[in-house]
Amino acid sequence: MRNVRLQVAYDGSRFFGWQRQDGFPTVQEALEEAVLAATGERVTVHGASRTDTGVHALGQVASFHVDTRLDDERLHHALNANLPPAARVRRLETCRDDFHPRFEARSKRYLYVTFTTRFRPPFAHEYAHWTPYALDREAMRRAARAMVGEHDFRAFSSSGSRRRSSVRRLLDVRLVLRRERVAFVFHGRGFLYNMARILAGTLLDVGRGRLEESCVPRALAEGDRRWVGPTAPAAGLYLLAVRYAEPVFPGPARSARGGPGVFRA
Amino acid sequence: MRNVRLQVAYDGSRFFGWQRQDGFPTVQEALEEAVLAATGERVTVHGASRTDTGVHALGQVASFHVDTRLDDERLHHALNANLPPAARVRRLETCRDDFHPRFEARSKRYLYVTFTTRFRPPFAHEYAHWTPYALDREAMRRAARAMVGEHDFRAFSSSGSRRRSSVRRLLDVRLVLRRERVAFVFHGRGFLYNMARILAGTLLDVGRGRLEESCVPRALAEGDRRWVGPTAPAAGLYLLAVRYAEPVFPGPARSARGGPGVFRA
Repeated sequence: MRNVRLQVAYDGSRFFGWQRQDGFPTVQEALEEAVLAATGERVTVHGASRTDTGVHALGQVASFHVDTRLDDERLHHALNANLPPAARVRRLETCRDDFHPRFEARSKRYLYVTFTTRFRPPFAHEYAHWTPYALDREAMRRAARAMVGEHDFRAFSSSGSRRRSSVRRLLDVRLVLRRERVAFVFHGRGFLYNMARILAGTLLDVGRGRLEESCVPRALAEGDRRWVGPTAPAAGLYLLAVRYAEPVFPGPARSARGGPGVFRA
Repeated sequence: MRNVRLQVAYDGSRFFGWQRQDGFPTVQEALEEAVLAATGERVTVHGASRTDTGVHALGQVASFHVDTRLDDERLHHALNANLPPAARVRRLETCRDDFHPRFEARSKRYLYVTFTTRFRPPFAHEYAHWTPYALDREAMRRAARAMVGEHDFRAFSSSGSRRRSSVRRLLDVRLVLRRERVAFVFHGRGFLYNMARILAGTLLDVGRGRLEESCVPRALAEGDRRWVGPTAPAAGLYLLAVRYAEPVFPGPARSARGGPGVFRA
């Protein structure tokens, strides 16, 4: 038995999210089926982030225990040969037996992409959000700065989530502004349910003037979901990377991340 | 009755090509239905290029005669309001009564996009071709140069096409080489059936060493389809622009072309 960890990219529009659900194709199920086909072993694959339906990943991290004689390189190829084309293992390595991708994650990076063309582009609706409104860059920058730090982010999570604590540390929010699109990169120690999408929806509402910048400190202080913006659509969200205390996948990527240039924020 | 011309963008993966076919959604039909919904008039929409299933357009040009009191701006908005999201009218203007987008086209520009990542990217299979092979840039450049000029391109067309003449003038082939993708831009006076896709398939085969560069002059001289590469998949092909002797749509684009950065070759 050895513990194997993966870096995985997937097109979220082709799956009903990460987590196994009977009768619906999910990423976890696709990986477990690929391991079964490659090794004959029924395993449970653990992921760092349980991404929702429609949310994409370039750098999801996952792991599973398996008993196989395939070495890492052969196992990597065998998994990709048995995965649907909408999911790819980018890197694979045997790791220490007690590594757990979710419990040990030190930080995660999410990208949120919005097209800002006047008319809705006919392309790639599954790969980006779209807004026709002119966006005030400086107002968005100021609102983003107010989000950074350790706060109670309860106002920025969906009401379904009742975790013990809703305090999280947001390390950085980066804005990438281009002629026809805007992207936010959220880097945080942890994220509540839907938090990245609500942060994005709030920045976009501040940008178009539907919300005041002051809504951010107010929502952080009062914890009221009503002061902030909507949950931005899943299509715009990408899990970019998960970091750990130890170096993971130190070599060069085996599978380039590929995909349209839009992902190179 | 006035003649109206349009610049249209569409996601070819959502249509069974340009030309009306009973029982299958096509771009021509979508436009004709939008005109009917907007004006109550049943019209025939003529396009500059009858793109195939899966082929995309950023700058298709189309026209139709219509009797309506809507001015150009209102008609433009009414068409977009009645089109499926996978097709957008970017620009619209009333033009001289005898303008015909296909017969008068002076040149067309097509873009062909191929990802060159080692593994097939999990994203955007409808929006680009993919090849895992290392490509020899200089060999592709030389083969592209041999394509430019006035030649009998019979070898570079699908056997279905039996036009009176298969002589065409290819004005330019531009190669855009990036870390994870390669794009070709073909600019020509006219194109035979599948010609852009066979030119692309040939350049890629030369790039990976499966064909010699000398296949291009040989195929142009001998007119034999067997000397050249395969018809590259439709997903990678974009009709970028159609040019006319007169200036068309002189103002700024009403609808930005949008779409992933990959389209900005």
